[in-house]
Amino acid sequence: MSTAAVDYARQNQQRFLSELKDLLRIPSVSTLPDHKDDVRRAADFVAAEMKRIGLEHVEVIKTEGHPLVYGDWLHAAGKPTALCYGHYDVQPPDPLDEWKSPPFDPTERNQNLYARGAVDDKGQMYMHLKALEALMKTGNGKLPLNVRLLIEGEEEVGGESIAAFVREHPDRLKSDFALVSDTEMFAPETPSLCVGLRGMCYTELEASGPMTDLHSGVYGGAAPNPFEALARIISKLKDESGKVLIPHFYDRVQKPTADELKAWDHLPLNEEHYRKTEVGSKVLTGEPGYSVLYRTWARPTLEVHGMPGGFTGHGAKTVIPARANAKVSMRLVPDQRPDEIWKLYNEFVQSIVPKGIEVKIKQWNVADPIVVSTDNKYIKASAQAMHDVFKKDTVYIRSGGSIPIVADFEKALKIPSVMMGFGLPDDNLHAPNEKFHIPNFYRGIESIIRFFQIVGGAA
Amino acid sequence: MSTAAVDYARQNQQRFLSELKDLLRIPSVSTLPDHKDDVRRAADFVAAEMKRIGLEHVEVIKTEGHPLVYGDWLHAAGKPTALCYGHYDVQPPDPLDEWKSPPFDPTERNQNLYARGAVDDKGQMYMHLKALEALMKTGNGKLPLNVRLLIEGEEEVGGESIAAFVREHPDRLKSDFALVSDTEMFAPETPSLCVGLRGMCYTELEASGPMTDLHSGVYGGAAPNPFEALARIISKLKDESGKVLIPHFYDRVQKPTADELKAWDHLPLNEEHYRKTEVGSKVLTGEPGYSVLYRTWARPTLEVHGMPGGFTGHGAKTVIPARANAKVSMRLVPDQRPDEIWKLYNEFVQSIVPKGIEVKIKQWNVADPIVVSTDNKYIKASAQAMHDVFKKDTVYIRSGGSIPIVADFEKALKIPSVMMGFGLPDDNLHAPNEKFHIPNFYRGIESIIRFFQIVGGAA
Repeated sequence: MSTAAVDYARQNQQRFLSELKDLLRIPSVSTLPDHKDDVRRAADFVAAEMKRIGLEHVEVIKTEGHPLVYGDWLHAAGKPTALCYGHYDVQPPDPLDEWKSPPFDPTERNQNLYARGAVDDKGQMYMHLKALEALMKTGNGKLPLNVRLLIEGEEEVGGESIAAFVREHPDRLKSDFALVSDTEMFAPETPSLCVGLRGMCYTELEASGPMTDLHSGVYGGAAPNPFEALARIISKLKDESGKVLIPHFYDRVQKPTADELKAWDHLPLNEEHYRKTEVGSKVLTGEPGYSVLYRTWARPTLEVHGMPGGFTGHGAKTVIPARANAKVSMRLVPDQRPDEIWKLYNEFVQSIVPKGIEVKIKQWNVADPIVVSTDNKYIKASAQAMHDVFKKDTVYIRSGGSIPIVADFEKALKIPSVMMGFGLPDDNLHAPNEKFHIPNFYRGIESIIRFFQIVGGAA
Repeated sequence: MSTAAVDYARQNQQRFLSELKDLLRIPSVSTLPDHKDDVRRAADFVAAEMKRIGLEHVEVIKTEGHPLVYGDWLHAAGKPTALCYGHYDVQPPDPLDEWKSPPFDPTERNQNLYARGAVDDKGQMYMHLKALEALMKTGNGKLPLNVRLLIEGEEEVGGESIAAFVREHPDRLKSDFALVSDTEMFAPETPSLCVGLRGMCYTELEASGPMTDLHSGVYGGAAPNPFEALARIISKLKDESGKVLIPHFYDRVQKPTADELKAWDHLPLNEEHYRKTEVGSKVLTGEPGYSVLYRTWARPTLEVHGMPGGFTGHGAKTVIPARANAKVSMRLVPDQRPDEIWKLYNEFVQSIVPKGIEVKIKQWNVADPIVVSTDNKYIKASAQAMHDVFKKDTVYIRSGGSIPIVADFEKALKIPSVMMGFGLPDDNLHAPNEKFHIPNFYRGIESIIRFFQIVGGAA
């Protein structure tokens, strides 16, 4: 396979990578208010790039939170319209001291590009732009299909603004399918299409006990301790086997189809290798009777992410803190409903609060779980495109992660999402030393070029 | 009661307070390495003051940790020798945003002096110096008894250096009794002598699960979560009633004497008032069947102070952290032994570590529990002195806190400690808005003058 657009992409690889590094240098951490201006700078960067490559109606759209970036090119009469989605915001980089090179100083090592956001999602979002650039430059300023791009800056904090925008502007976003590159491949050299995502309900428990921090010597034995209360609550939310204990939590959980389960059994996953190289713990955990893929793709779970409050410095401080928090999230699977789970969770937590303690529960974000039918021409075209580039059959997988907008595209725009992702399992998403495998950045661009050519009937 | 020394102290109250403020401005936080120089500055301040008031052999003694400050005056032939103990280090001031005035900018409000260390222990330690100054200035440069002062800078971090010094230099510290002002009065206007302290075993659990921080979507359901493990461990260390579940934990716990229990019943403690005004929680907690005083003075307990690790910022970060810690301490009562408890705790914690998790346990500090006999002439003299100043009977109380050096004085020097404290229950020790009630600062100085006069036979 070789076309003018692919040749162009190959000739410009170094420049594409260099541009991506410029974007990665912007610390657009959406959850931290201090980085608001950086998030805006990243939006401006994306908008400028859209204009440069020839997209039209480019706009940085203000929202209640961080801005959206929109651009389109709609002159391929009679051809399908793609809605390209990505996000330019990133997770916080902490713990900083575990990064081998600074998170916002993109560094190449062993064919990998290390930086916060390298693969999630700046690098993958940028592939769309570069594929469109290549098609435009080698197609006399024309594309083989119509495209709209909608890039958000709040994916890592729940994506409320884009969800509202999609619900409110279905006509402005009218498309035939969405292209989302925010997932990963099953394994190196294994082209993968993601057809399922877990949903999310991210909460924070705020426990309060004494009215002020107390001396643990003077008051220990009389004052309620909010950390102890949270420990007790957390240990009752999930049992040691990994089963969530919230009543009715599993009521709507659907089994994957027999075909899907059979296909997963054929995926090259060695659980012992996965344990050693990806997780690195003594043993794997989770519900007995389910495989790793089943547990992480199609079973819900509950995790604790951090417990702010009290004394966290070096050494000893003898305090019974007035308050302690716990960041707790649940991953959901079809057909669990985030609002229903939120309600069940609230009721159950409040029913197990130890005496003397008050718990308030905050909701940070929610996302619907999703499955996409593989019986769809865009999914098929995408599988074909990746096969052409990687010279291997494309496998259908799910992801345990959440991309809330996919459910919004389905609900508000009635379109399926093609989740072509080029991350790798060891890319350290949301963790120190996040990276993007540089050959995958290039093959991702070529796959998208090819995908658009097939969809546009130009291949 | 009026003597020249007391008159002198009354005439110089404003200056004494002003000098104390200078000392309180030095942020001598012993647990934070960044404050090492401040701790040293506080030691120098104390040494300079000892010299200024006429003490001899004044020395800032280097240790493995923060320095000791020593001074003496030993020319009262045939009279008893007092060993005055105090500490010039303080607890960390966090959470900073809950202070009404900055912790190291001493501020007077409603007859209280607000600052970190105001009552614990700079203000109380300073009373000794000012009592000695008053006696010296009004006694032709002589004191009614012999005194040694030994002031440390590591009380808030376990006091290892002073403990070693006391064990290694019993001859240099030869005295008849120790005077310790690092406790509180039972209630306002209630002169109190503390005759019992709880011991301490302060630990930090370090739980590790995955080899690196993991995305909770991708790995949730397969990777062990160290916060969940700590929650499970903590919930098994103590039951909901407040009973510690470590096997053999209570084996050596002694009941207070019937006389002591009877005396406590007569102390003016209204548990509902205590709950409302001191603790401020919905209900009090702790072992059923024991009064608040019994629980906090003579029953051991276990508390969690903070759980560092993971994501503690604003908002949502979907991480399964590689590591999570928990700061856990136990307060001990006679005859529990810290080294034995440490061993039982270690064995029990390791026996309940959830699968997939490794836990290392660090020991931050330990202290022996203590009871002092009330049948002692120095205790009696002290009770008399406070009665003379406050015009009320002195009550015998215990403290739930720990002053490790008191056990060391008993073991290495074979001397009892007179714990004359002038703090108040609402002084916010170890918490934001720590304060010292200014009239108690002045009455404390007068009580110590009077005590030294009685002991020296000058009254």
